[in-house]
Amino acid sequence: MSDSFAATFKTGPISQLLTPCLLLDEIKLRRNLDRLDERLAGLGVTLRPHLKTAKSVDVARLAVPHRKAPATVSTLMEAEYFAAEGMHDLLYAVGIAPAKLDRVGAIRRRYKAALSIILDSVEQAEAVTEWCRRSGDKLPVFIEIDCDGHRSGVQPGETERLVAIGRILHEGGAILRGVMTHAGESYNLNDPKALTAAAETERAGAVSAAEALRAAGLPCPVVSVGSTPTAHFARNLEGVTEVRAGVYMFSDLVQAGIGVCGVEDIALSVLATVIGHQRSKGWIIVDAGWMAMSRDRGTASQTVDQGYGVVCDLAGTPYPDLIMPGANQEHGVLALRPGSNAALPDLKLGDKVRILPNHACATGAQHDRYHVVHGAEADVKAIWPRINGW
Amino acid sequence: MSDSFAATFKTGPISQLLTPCLLLDEIKLRRNLDRLDERLAGLGVTLRPHLKTAKSVDVARLAVPHRKAPATVSTLMEAEYFAAEGMHDLLYAVGIAPAKLDRVGAIRRRYKAALSIILDSVEQAEAVTEWCRRSGDKLPVFIEIDCDGHRSGVQPGETERLVAIGRILHEGGAILRGVMTHAGESYNLNDPKALTAAAETERAGAVSAAEALRAAGLPCPVVSVGSTPTAHFARNLEGVTEVRAGVYMFSDLVQAGIGVCGVEDIALSVLATVIGHQRSKGWIIVDAGWMAMSRDRGTASQTVDQGYGVVCDLAGTPYPDLIMPGANQEHGVLALRPGSNAALPDLKLGDKVRILPNHACATGAQHDRYHVVHGAEADVKAIWPRINGW
Repeated sequence: MSDSFAATFKTGPISQLLTPCLLLDEIKLRRNLDRLDERLAGLGVTLRPHLKTAKSVDVARLAVPHRKAPATVSTLMEAEYFAAEGMHDLLYAVGIAPAKLDRVGAIRRRYKAALSIILDSVEQAEAVTEWCRRSGDKLPVFIEIDCDGHRSGVQPGETERLVAIGRILHEGGAILRGVMTHAGESYNLNDPKALTAAAETERAGAVSAAEALRAAGLPCPVVSVGSTPTAHFARNLEGVTEVRAGVYMFSDLVQAGIGVCGVEDIALSVLATVIGHQRSKGWIIVDAGWMAMSRDRGTASQTVDQGYGVVCDLAGTPYPDLIMPGANQEHGVLALRPGSNAALPDLKLGDKVRILPNHACATGAQHDRYHVVHGAEADVKAIWPRINGW
Repeated sequence: MSDSFAATFKTGPISQLLTPCLLLDEIKLRRNLDRLDERLAGLGVTLRPHLKTAKSVDVARLAVPHRKAPATVSTLMEAEYFAAEGMHDLLYAVGIAPAKLDRVGAIRRRYKAALSIILDSVEQAEAVTEWCRRSGDKLPVFIEIDCDGHRSGVQPGETERLVAIGRILHEGGAILRGVMTHAGESYNLNDPKALTAAAETERAGAVSAAEALRAAGLPCPVVSVGSTPTAHFARNLEGVTEVRAGVYMFSDLVQAGIGVCGVEDIALSVLATVIGHQRSKGWIIVDAGWMAMSRDRGTASQTVDQGYGVVCDLAGTPYPDLIMPGANQEHGVLALRPGSNAALPDLKLGDKVRILPNHACATGAQHDRYHVVHGAEADVKAIWPRINGW
């Protein structure tokens, strides 16, 4: 379809943007990237950035500056998109469905990409090796380990199953590239000691699985761990070769609630316009509802519930205690936190605000582009497209 | 970008679809459309379908068969998309931001569309009439009424404000087309008597506002009310000229929880593939996570919490007590409801399931197309694209 208005905006003042739309602060983004790069370099491991949050080649160019450097994706759509841009070492980090192998093979051939997959069962390993034999493509495979009961993966102690999967892959024509795990339960923590312990559980789970494979005479060159919280709280990554993280690039209110960053580090926000008031209730109505913010309410289970988001002025500074407690599809209700003594800001019809999201992955997915800004400067510097879908 | 695989699929067996993806049962869709059409015809009012759920011209052709018939949209992107397809009488049902008036005017001119807007303040009415005078375009305007404290709108009893807005519009060069209200609080109900009462509150609020305008010598030809629950439970719509509803087309688990429909009436589902198991926990892992289902957990506050969705076989029949209690970005965890005595179905790696969503508007928005199916038949009959964004 022709979208005559949205298509005409290239760069210019933020105040000229049609709302709702997504802003990305490139200065905060670069700072977040540098921070984790430096941290992991100090721990002697490689970072394999997860591109599921950004889904943008422009962000990938900053996060993965070398085309041959490793990266992670969450869909085969992302794999194809980033491979088409020349990225090489891509890990599709969702357990493989056998019906997807032909598409994996097509991406590998078409873009000469070292796209690898993950799995956690004998059935998958058999399907993969059968596919490798049929296609002649030696697929690189990671075995997924469940370090903390979060979702998928071979359980700790299931050494027999682990070795059986490894042997089928290694002897059946695939490349057993290593093991990988994700400490997803770390998202439920907010205490530095507990986060460091979660990182150690993640490390130990992956390393002991790698050792079990090696003890059985199987190769395991790569030991991959990662989540944004554990990547920021790990003290020791002995035996680990790479760390995966994604949301650290933009960060969000959930990460701030965990303690990974401050609210001032959040690079992503939704620009919204005031469209009304319910003055007797202390409500300001904006044109960003859950369609623009996403339905993610990750802070609802944290110590500080931020509603659908924290409301900032156009320069990105939060208004004291102003959040979005309620949202409909295209309406957001702004109000002071319950019990706040702050004054409701005098936001008038047509005024614009920036709203920090609960969860950058979910909010980003509601949009098809980033409007790139630099800190409190009033101009949009660039438009960076992003993808969605599978 | 080139998406070589997804783009090649046109029609064929459901089993050949890449997952996750969205299925739409055209038979249920048509039945849902007929049901509300007949109900409202019996009550003597016009239906102005809300296209915010479907966002698809193919669905609009069924829901609004006559190009001149009224419809509702939630974004100006939708307004432009449907106007470009020849739809004429479109109501943009989110309070207008003055900065959007130029785009409204461009859509009206370019497509000769009778696009109308809503507002609830003197400030907006002044901005609109100033714009009308400047542009020479007599914009049709509805005044929004707050019938149940849900979000925007002139409050009941604020007759002075209501008449002031009406007078500014009528005397300032806009067309005062009428009043509109939305009983959004009806989503929190599940008792037929309470729902019928909510419909009456909605009717009475709109009609009394219309009478107040007329008593002040102002025109109010259209009296527009609507929400999917009140549209299905209203007994008397005296004084109302049209009803708006959107989610009724597809329906969803929230509507079933309210009592608007049965689970068997839900036309929308997400097709997913089994990618693993955690057998000791009774978990089946599928490749549809919250990215495919949306983060909407509308049933969490209802009598029956359906998790992220109700799991059905490929023919669309629910497995007893099988729901999706947990979801990550691209992983869904299927398990029996707590306390269930049902047996966990023997779903194997690669098996496909259909998952009914909490909220059709939110789940639809995670996708760019519908794969159209007919009941339990195994073939995809068509691909219907849909839009997102603003």
